[in-house]
Amino acid sequence: MRKITKEAIEQAEQIIKPYIHRTPVMTNKSINELSGIDFYFKCENFQKIGAFKIRGGMHATLQLTPEQLLNGVATHSSGNHAQALAYAGKILGIKAYIVMPKSSPQVKVDAVRGYGADVIICEANQIAREETLKQVVEKTGATFIHPFDNDDVITGQATCLKEFLEEVPALDAVLAPVGGGGMLSGTCLAAHYFKPGLKVYGGEPEGAADAVLSIKSGKVEKAPFINTIADGLMTTLSERTLAIIKEHVTDILLVSDEEIKAALRLIYERMKIIVEPSCVVPFAAALKNPALFKGKKVGIILSGGNVDITKFGDWFPPTGLTIH
Amino acid sequence: MRKITKEAIEQAEQIIKPYIHRTPVMTNKSINELSGIDFYFKCENFQKIGAFKIRGGMHATLQLTPEQLLNGVATHSSGNHAQALAYAGKILGIKAYIVMPKSSPQVKVDAVRGYGADVIICEANQIAREETLKQVVEKTGATFIHPFDNDDVITGQATCLKEFLEEVPALDAVLAPVGGGGMLSGTCLAAHYFKPGLKVYGGEPEGAADAVLSIKSGKVEKAPFINTIADGLMTTLSERTLAIIKEHVTDILLVSDEEIKAALRLIYERMKIIVEPSCVVPFAAALKNPALFKGKKVGIILSGGNVDITKFGDWFPPTGLTIH
Repeated sequence: MRKITKEAIEQAEQIIKPYIHRTPVMTNKSINELSGIDFYFKCENFQKIGAFKIRGGMHATLQLTPEQLLNGVATHSSGNHAQALAYAGKILGIKAYIVMPKSSPQVKVDAVRGYGADVIICEANQIAREETLKQVVEKTGATFIHPFDNDDVITGQATCLKEFLEEVPALDAVLAPVGGGGMLSGTCLAAHYFKPGLKVYGGEPEGAADAVLSIKSGKVEKAPFINTIADGLMTTLSERTLAIIKEHVTDILLVSDEEIKAALRLIYERMKIIVEPSCVVPFAAALKNPALFKGKKVGIILSGGNVDITKFGDWFPPTGLTIH
Repeated sequence: MRKITKEAIEQAEQIIKPYIHRTPVMTNKSINELSGIDFYFKCENFQKIGAFKIRGGMHATLQLTPEQLLNGVATHSSGNHAQALAYAGKILGIKAYIVMPKSSPQVKVDAVRGYGADVIICEANQIAREETLKQVVEKTGATFIHPFDNDDVITGQATCLKEFLEEVPALDAVLAPVGGGGMLSGTCLAAHYFKPGLKVYGGEPEGAADAVLSIKSGKVEKAPFINTIADGLMTTLSERTLAIIKEHVTDILLVSDEEIKAALRLIYERMKIIVEPSCVVPFAAALKNPALFKGKKVGIILSGGNVDITKFGDWFPPTGLTIH
């Protein structure tokens, strides 16, 4: 029997409410005019820690027993889940152990340390990450909270679409990014319970196209190659997220890095908000598929805003042109 | 007798209300924690055309007689005032003639043309701008609306602080940027009428330090040199704005370009919103002067978000450091 029920999502919303923001839904007239799509943006870039991951991280942590909480939580992540657990640790007054590969940007390590978490630096490969985490868990007794292969995490992420539908009940479709599939699984289940019939799409980079293959074959596939600026979406699905997504998703839509950059620029220039590349993948996918979305009310989960602004020079080089 | 009365500002608010956004006031816990200042940000970067200038531009245009409106409006500007008049022209269905120096970024010319305005490109010096504008006005009969040396424009800008005080009546101080002085004059007068005793500061770049000199000498002074990334604040005051500011301002605070970049980065990384360099000058000034603002409720007018993102590479170069 599935643990992630309608009631579980409703409870999750109440449990995490004191610790998170109810993020705003933004609209933008000029983007609607140029696309012919009626867009609604759920701004999780304004969420605590700058990303939706606090929903799942906080919810999973709050499911632990007092005995478990005493020993703290642990994970391996260089991304937003690391910050989510670190923040949960700070707020709840418990230890958080975060294993981060030595390739992690200093700004992310600093952010995690800023919340008072213990950062353990390891070699930048999957085996080293898992091995180091195992040692940390054995030594400390901390509970490992996986970034997405965890029902309590997925239940937490599902609260995002629930809130979104409360603000904009008339949505025709919703698009979320797909990396490991935690957010997309939660979005699928929230749609299933709270608005059956709502179309749910995943947006995936061409340079990390594992989900689209996995849905097709029915088993967890690796991407043929990994090369994308959407650095939060490089992970493969798990059996758990694949099963949920396969059952409920309408489709997975692929976009190129050039399309991601164009979408990023549109959000920066028209909406005046900072989002990360992974987060605009669904928006880029909607723009790329007008036949699916034109004239519809389309919800975009803007999943996060933790971007390294020193990369803008690469993404948006000066053109040097003067035409007038 | 001064034309900009309390009633004029109240009327202006009603007149422009259908055409502008009531912009949100944002707060940020982490910025408050690291500064020890209780900041409130009035987000005019989310305003129509991406800047407060629509307030004054729209208000001044709506003061014209039907006969004047028939011939349209004109100005010389490469910045947000150009967009404001172009947008007013579009909305009201009248002609807008915008003289822009040939040094203007293509993106700004495109934006103005996008609103349907006539763009007249001239040489990039003050004499050419004024001469070209004179010819346009003679030929078309359009009414020249100055970016700041105009009571109706200043009255429009004053509506911003009025709204701000309605949201946060307990402000101890407010800071606004100072270029030509239109926004700062409006802010001074709104404070005078709606919250006497509120401290009003102008933020000015060291690389365009004319206002601070003009206040001291009592006459309109030029900056000793012009060199700043705050490209919206390079103008000198006019007699009109100097008189208002000199009478009401608490002080003008100077900041360096390095301080502007650090403030810009803080807003991008912590608040996840896009603002332009000119617009963070007051915030940088508040951070630089903790003795004035610590423990106080400080309002910052985030004046606009029209920034050329291809410049981020220069402002925030990759550090290349790995320390952990």
